[in-house]
Amino acid sequence: VTVHLVGAGPGDPGLLTVRALELLRSCDAVVADTLVCPDVLREVPDDALVVSRAGMSQEQVNELLVRLGRRGLDVVRLKGGDPFVFGRGGEEALALAAAGIPFTVVPGVSALAAVPAAALIPVTHRGVAHTVTLSTGRAENGDEPDYDALVAGGGTIVLFMGLGRLAVIAAGLMQAGLPQSTAAAVVAGGTLPEQEVVVADLAGIAEAAEGLSSPALLVVGDVVRVGVALKQATETAFQHQG
Amino acid sequence: VTVHLVGAGPGDPGLLTVRALELLRSCDAVVADTLVCPDVLREVPDDALVVSRAGMSQEQVNELLVRLGRRGLDVVRLKGGDPFVFGRGGEEALALAAAGIPFTVVPGVSALAAVPAAALIPVTHRGVAHTVTLSTGRAENGDEPDYDALVAGGGTIVLFMGLGRLAVIAAGLMQAGLPQSTAAAVVAGGTLPEQEVVVADLAGIAEAAEGLSSPALLVVGDVVRVGVALKQATETAFQHQG
Repeated sequence: VTVHLVGAGPGDPGLLTVRALELLRSCDAVVADTLVCPDVLREVPDDALVVSRAGMSQEQVNELLVRLGRRGLDVVRLKGGDPFVFGRGGEEALALAAAGIPFTVVPGVSALAAVPAAALIPVTHRGVAHTVTLSTGRAENGDEPDYDALVAGGGTIVLFMGLGRLAVIAAGLMQAGLPQSTAAAVVAGGTLPEQEVVVADLAGIAEAAEGLSSPALLVVGDVVRVGVALKQATETAFQHQG
Repeated sequence: VTVHLVGAGPGDPGLLTVRALELLRSCDAVVADTLVCPDVLREVPDDALVVSRAGMSQEQVNELLVRLGRRGLDVVRLKGGDPFVFGRGGEEALALAAAGIPFTVVPGVSALAAVPAAALIPVTHRGVAHTVTLSTGRAENGDEPDYDALVAGGGTIVLFMGLGRLAVIAAGLMQAGLPQSTAAAVVAGGTLPEQEVVVADLAGIAEAAEGLSSPALLVVGDVVRVGVALKQATETAFQHQG
């Protein structure tokens, strides 16, 4: 009996870890985030219990994990991205520890770098950015993020967010001192076949991203230009070959 | 012919991705970082060329990748962690694109979250930290990092660094305004069997970490206390069961 808090990666099933796949193939039960790719869930044994956490509060998820653990089951709690990066895995771990249920944490590929990488954007690049600040598009109390703090970090900014907040967030970053011309990219459906990428300056990014689907990731900073240069060089090379 | 820039994860072979393993098992050549786990390299075909990048400059690595690509080989460039998070994968991608060599980027599990997770520290936690700033223990020109900017970010700070610089870095963070009592952890050999973790306040972390081996990761902020609480709860639960 162990509950494994497992990162499923950003979406692409190929970005699951070897350990995650092994655990899925031998588990008794899976409690899966709604954003986890259905292909991944086909890996579990036929007689395993598969539960979606859709509609459950975090407290209900914690209780469910404790209950399944108490029944002596091997449980995979499959979480989008990485369980300990905006994944609230710490809360689930504390609930399990308090109940005396053994648990492990199996890190996953976080969207923070994998999604920009899928758009050929490195979040750090020599001479361009050697610091990255990650945050969400809303503070925990529902307030706006601390834009001054995000901008003061001085490096690449990566924000997990709903697209409906993009205009407000871009305005907040500009008010906090980022120039209107700062390069920005929005990646929707990152690493999946339906992935869409738009690039614009911060002043124009909300308009450019209209029509994309949530959830999305916003990348702000000069590394976006490295991604654009890479994409152009790749396309040019491809034309020469063709 | 394709050069795949592949993240090998933080060390533990179980944290390799499914795609990385597939590519390793079918490649013609591997160019591996020195920190990549030897177990992982045993996965390549017997007749594959395996080259360590030890002793090579970044420019030499770029040239080698272009040369191998030009020979029509399928090449895995196996990088510690994630290729686009402090991995200089962007530079290798630009060199390949400029030479007209097709490439792909395969993200890996970054040490940034996996190594703290291996010490049970979540880099974000509700009510504790909802922002993370990642950086290296030295600026690119060899200068000190911008401690003011790191501290201004206001969230968890994660620094990749050599242990020899720990005392200077802790002093820099305190001078930039972090209290001496700020919780800090150093994780050496993260995710590997030889992993060692020390926890102390910022004023005492350098002394506490004496004798550990590089490379190491420094985590600064209240999330370290969540990790300590998790570890204690786990040990208490284990004693009750025993």
